[in-house]
Amino acid sequence: MPVGTQATVKTMTPEELYEIGVDIILSNAYHLFLRPGQEIIRLIGGLHSFMHWDKPILTDSGGYQIFSLGRLRKITEEGARFQSHIDGSYHLFTPESVIEFQMLLGSDIVMPLDECAPYPCGYKEARIAKDRTTRWAKRNKQAFLASTSAKEAAFSAIDENCSSLFGIVQGNMYSDLRHESIDELTDIGFDGYAIGGLSVGEPKEIMYEMLKQTVPRLPKDSPHYLMGVGAPEDILEAVEAGVDMFDCVMPTRHARTGEVFTSNGPLVIRNAPCATDTTPIDHECGCYVCRNYSRAYIRHLIHVNEILGVRLTTWHNLAFMMKLMRQIRESILQERFLEFKKEFLENWGHRFSNS
Amino acid sequence: MPVGTQATVKTMTPEELYEIGVDIILSNAYHLFLRPGQEIIRLIGGLHSFMHWDKPILTDSGGYQIFSLGRLRKITEEGARFQSHIDGSYHLFTPESVIEFQMLLGSDIVMPLDECAPYPCGYKEARIAKDRTTRWAKRNKQAFLASTSAKEAAFSAIDENCSSLFGIVQGNMYSDLRHESIDELTDIGFDGYAIGGLSVGEPKEIMYEMLKQTVPRLPKDSPHYLMGVGAPEDILEAVEAGVDMFDCVMPTRHARTGEVFTSNGPLVIRNAPCATDTTPIDHECGCYVCRNYSRAYIRHLIHVNEILGVRLTTWHNLAFMMKLMRQIRESILQERFLEFKKEFLENWGHRFSNS
Repeated sequence: MPVGTQATVKTMTPEELYEIGVDIILSNAYHLFLRPGQEIIRLIGGLHSFMHWDKPILTDSGGYQIFSLGRLRKITEEGARFQSHIDGSYHLFTPESVIEFQMLLGSDIVMPLDECAPYPCGYKEARIAKDRTTRWAKRNKQAFLASTSAKEAAFSAIDENCSSLFGIVQGNMYSDLRHESIDELTDIGFDGYAIGGLSVGEPKEIMYEMLKQTVPRLPKDSPHYLMGVGAPEDILEAVEAGVDMFDCVMPTRHARTGEVFTSNGPLVIRNAPCATDTTPIDHECGCYVCRNYSRAYIRHLIHVNEILGVRLTTWHNLAFMMKLMRQIRESILQERFLEFKKEFLENWGHRFSNS
Repeated sequence: MPVGTQATVKTMTPEELYEIGVDIILSNAYHLFLRPGQEIIRLIGGLHSFMHWDKPILTDSGGYQIFSLGRLRKITEEGARFQSHIDGSYHLFTPESVIEFQMLLGSDIVMPLDECAPYPCGYKEARIAKDRTTRWAKRNKQAFLASTSAKEAAFSAIDENCSSLFGIVQGNMYSDLRHESIDELTDIGFDGYAIGGLSVGEPKEIMYEMLKQTVPRLPKDSPHYLMGVGAPEDILEAVEAGVDMFDCVMPTRHARTGEVFTSNGPLVIRNAPCATDTTPIDHECGCYVCRNYSRAYIRHLIHVNEILGVRLTTWHNLAFMMKLMRQIRESILQERFLEFKKEFLENWGHRFSNS
């Protein structure tokens, strides 16, 4: 899922996303709550119509963003009190209010409010956060059921346009806590299960190990979603562990600093060697950018601060990730995923940090 | 002609420009000479291929940009010596070198090196600049003929892909000097005639008066091009005087500061009143932006510094100008131009400054 934090996947129109095969995007309740705010979303009739996007949207509850605010937030049993990173105003997110706001957004996949422990984190603190996430998960589910019943009663449309609610597995880097979290969440019952609290600064090996300890225990017939990941090599590891869905700002963020993905690994296209390079970003790509533009032109655009430059790098990086996911799906269907993984990583060269 | 100073019409792809009906763009030899520079243009095989643009390009010689450098330039009979506004490096543009560089760019309409006098400007100074422009015009023409004969000899393609050379009328705000300039340029003979040295800070009434004194004396069967103009009201005045072609950064520059054109005049879409406005920028427009996005969404994007915001305002403003030019052409064919002009200006409201 490309990330559209502020009701736009940076630099891209919806039509451009459709063209590269994007079927679902992620947006952030935290950011949309602050700007444009509830009243405008209500007035326009939801996020799809606001941003002219006709396909599914998954909205993050804001739990992770609030966790990232550090001293600007305070967690209580009621919910998460925080100060806006924009104007310092005070707000309270509760398990009930984040569901209500995401339903107002018209989100297709609603995420619950959870508590994400930092890394490193002591066992006791990790347990407290995991336990609270479970108690909040029950309240999230209650609020979601109340909201969907009200919606169904109002529209008599039980099967159409109904949203899904996912649970978020916590437990930091302690596999017993993660196992408890899975048991507690599956008792409550969700439409899909997300793995939260990874990719928060821990070494990659620990993340991979936690995935192996966690994902195989999730219900087999529900989607498994690894939040905030990732880099191609992380996606391949996570898919091997059984993950189905990902979101990450990496393709769009790297694009804006002039870093692009190629079959042979990442390339810093803003650097001087690309100035005279008449080849496309990636010969094997075939996206609009690689069909029509040279590295030299894109390097020129970035060098002179032209917006078309970051448009083209973003477009290509997203197309590259969508192609990678298609290739992964095909290799699974052909029962040659491990072979594909090995081939891809040999060419890719493992040179990217998980930033 | 939308302006693509640095080998890109800011924020737009060529396909988007084709969609709104753009048949020709302007680019700047001065900027392209500095970045990416001659060697890269030579390597890629010209500007069209560099920027993936298949339709005609008019390139400005750089005369006006050098004029704008103020103390960083020195005009001699040989040409214009100047310091780069980017790194302070010294360069010399001569009537011969600007033709050579524009031919290297593969420009479809080549502009000569001229000397643009400032406003206000004494009669003597204006005459000196006009006289030098005439002497340089002869050298421009010689260099152009030499270059095109060499090209024809090399490719045996006399009729295909041949470039045109325009002359630039100078004379500041003195109509007798402008009349002399026209006589001298038509003696040399050019494929089209541009009016330079207007819209350099003089009151609009003076510009309109100069157009009336100048354009009717230009050869009837050649295109008449008013450089660096303009605002819709200026375009309408100039068309009435007999001008055919325009270029201006206004639609793209205003778009980047959150100002958009509507049938009822300009609108500052970044301002708060648009935050809750669910209507399109312009109900009468019909461009991609007005078909799909609300003012509220575009205002949100600009408010949170999202690139899609300036993409959408730029797209609309250019579509608005292209539609205006189509309407002007149709009204001329229907022999109702003056009626159209009156209607448009009544709705438009004359509220825009010529910035």
